[in-house]
Amino acid sequence: MASDEQSAATLAAFTERDLIGRIRARLSSPADWLLVGIGDDAAVVEPAKNRVEVLTVDAVVEGVHFDRAFVPADAIGHRALAVNLSDLAAMGAAPRLALLSLVLPPTLLLSEFDGIIQGVATLAARHGMRVVGGNLARSPGPLIVDITAIGTVKRRQALTRGGARPGDELYVSGTIGSAAAGLESLRRQLAGARSSGDDGVPAPNTGDTPLIDAYLRPAPRIRIGTLLSRNRAATACMDLSDGLSDAVYQIAEASGVGAEIDADALPIDPAARAVLRARHDDPIVRAITAGDDYELLAAVRPRMRRRLAAVTRHGDVPLRRIGIVTADRAVVLKRSTAGGVERMPLPRDSYAHFGAVDRETADATSGGASSA
Amino acid sequence: MASDEQSAATLAAFTERDLIGRIRARLSSPADWLLVGIGDDAAVVEPAKNRVEVLTVDAVVEGVHFDRAFVPADAIGHRALAVNLSDLAAMGAAPRLALLSLVLPPTLLLSEFDGIIQGVATLAARHGMRVVGGNLARSPGPLIVDITAIGTVKRRQALTRGGARPGDELYVSGTIGSAAAGLESLRRQLAGARSSGDDGVPAPNTGDTPLIDAYLRPAPRIRIGTLLSRNRAATACMDLSDGLSDAVYQIAEASGVGAEIDADALPIDPAARAVLRARHDDPIVRAITAGDDYELLAAVRPRMRRRLAAVTRHGDVPLRRIGIVTADRAVVLKRSTAGGVERMPLPRDSYAHFGAVDRETADATSGGASSA
Repeated sequence: MASDEQSAATLAAFTERDLIGRIRARLSSPADWLLVGIGDDAAVVEPAKNRVEVLTVDAVVEGVHFDRAFVPADAIGHRALAVNLSDLAAMGAAPRLALLSLVLPPTLLLSEFDGIIQGVATLAARHGMRVVGGNLARSPGPLIVDITAIGTVKRRQALTRGGARPGDELYVSGTIGSAAAGLESLRRQLAGARSSGDDGVPAPNTGDTPLIDAYLRPAPRIRIGTLLSRNRAATACMDLSDGLSDAVYQIAEASGVGAEIDADALPIDPAARAVLRARHDDPIVRAITAGDDYELLAAVRPRMRRRLAAVTRHGDVPLRRIGIVTADRAVVLKRSTAGGVERMPLPRDSYAHFGAVDRETADATSGGASSA
Repeated sequence: MASDEQSAATLAAFTERDLIGRIRARLSSPADWLLVGIGDDAAVVEPAKNRVEVLTVDAVVEGVHFDRAFVPADAIGHRALAVNLSDLAAMGAAPRLALLSLVLPPTLLLSEFDGIIQGVATLAARHGMRVVGGNLARSPGPLIVDITAIGTVKRRQALTRGGARPGDELYVSGTIGSAAAGLESLRRQLAGARSSGDDGVPAPNTGDTPLIDAYLRPAPRIRIGTLLSRNRAATACMDLSDGLSDAVYQIAEASGVGAEIDADALPIDPAARAVLRARHDDPIVRAITAGDDYELLAAVRPRMRRRLAAVTRHGDVPLRRIGIVTADRAVVLKRSTAGGVERMPLPRDSYAHFGAVDRETADATSGGASSA
């Protein structure tokens, strides 16, 4: 087949061997510790010296975690790796290698397949990690990208959720709510395009581009995580994959403490706040409970502020102090109102049942009809 | 909920936290090298000393690799881990740890969920391996169990596909075609039960039990693989997940050699041969090309026969010599016929296209209607 024709073809026209060849071409890169790479029954690697290994696995599932109507193929690959890198960052680990398990509908275009691989390859290269193996299976349903990522950290420097102590200050990297706002922008654009009779992915509204990028191509906070771990500034750390509120509750529970979050200190980007306000009664609650911000939440002893300043200096995004760890096990949101300071339990998406379709995803996969 | 009521409930009635709790209860077991297990952003492990690591990932997908109409939940879990252990065995690696990524429809019964976990737990315990982490995602379609398994082997003892040399003898462990015959028996039983108006999984026909077990609960050849690797008896090794024929072609290609297989030497169980004969013109071709026999194919120098005998003595199944590696790159099947010895290219399922539905699976998922 000619190349243009090929890209327009679906996976059904290719053999598994063809597809693995395309993956190898984009993802195989040697490393002195990689003894056997893609192409045998399994990969063989030399472990890193004087390091422990940090292992995580996370899948992104079409119709649950993303909608192909407005998430381009490279962003599917990017996000699938990014959610795993974010877990490594939360442990303070430096990424080393990944295994890529793809479950793909045969109706997928070859160009989309290549796009997914390219999204993984670009982000992997940015963090100097190798894809050492994987698996390819046919899906009779949704497209799934399942990635196992392995990183390394010095033995006593792995960050966990369980070390926060009363008096520690809570910091969050970057901004919160941006990804949720980006998702809403994408939904609106799609709904707009559909109601005006266009099909295909709409052109981005340039004003919302940074928000949309925060949703489509989140930057895992590897640099911040490894800096926090190396200079031992943090007592506990977790990523915000399920939202800031969830992370605060998880650290509090794992550490046997409580927390008080200051609403006025939350780093919500003004553009995101505007987008969220258009649809939610309370943009702050939405920003706190929304997932997909792959930022880090860290607990830091006040006397470590100088070390933290070094992390901020060498990191790629600021760390903002948003609250404090308390001995009282309540998890509280403190808000200034016209009548003074209000204290309430930190809002959380109540334990979602496994069958419950997430509100945002449901909206997203229905093309944002409810916001049209 | 009362316990009986619970088991009859679907996952939709539970939170992700509930389900992770059930996994932890069945799969968490400590190890001195396991520094952080299930429950944080990622697992932390100390690498094995003086060993290299062998990594593999493999997914089993409902409707592609198994049919829930006749594959019980524990067998789904067992097979998902077994296919990975078989890859480790083929490299000569001893299993160490696994990560379990589940993509589950919310309509799954809690009892089935527990069964899947139990199937993984039982096989993992048999091989002394730990499940150190995982992921749980909702599926809008098929049930998928995706497992990453990691094993260890001494640096120079990893077996690959690429080391076979002309003159090496080819050996296969156990029997071939048994799993394919077991699958046919299951299909027939289901078709029989359906045509007689029963619903649910039919009672097994006890005569076919060993074959059905070979399909439902294959025993990965870890012991054979590690013995072959430790005493350096084999020059190349691969597992038969895609059939004996595929394995012969892959080793020949990776090693730059050819092979001659002796049809009369193939270890096909008589019961399997009888089942296959009932449906296929040529049960030998079917046994050669059928997948799901998680046996090993190894190339062994003739002067290593004594070492090989030791492997057979200490292994759990026999190794049978089935052919020879040749300098001529053709891959040939030698068969005795009435007219003498016939030589033909080793039959293989011609490069299956990614969209092609496997004949056996299609039959299986349609309830074996074509054999009814």
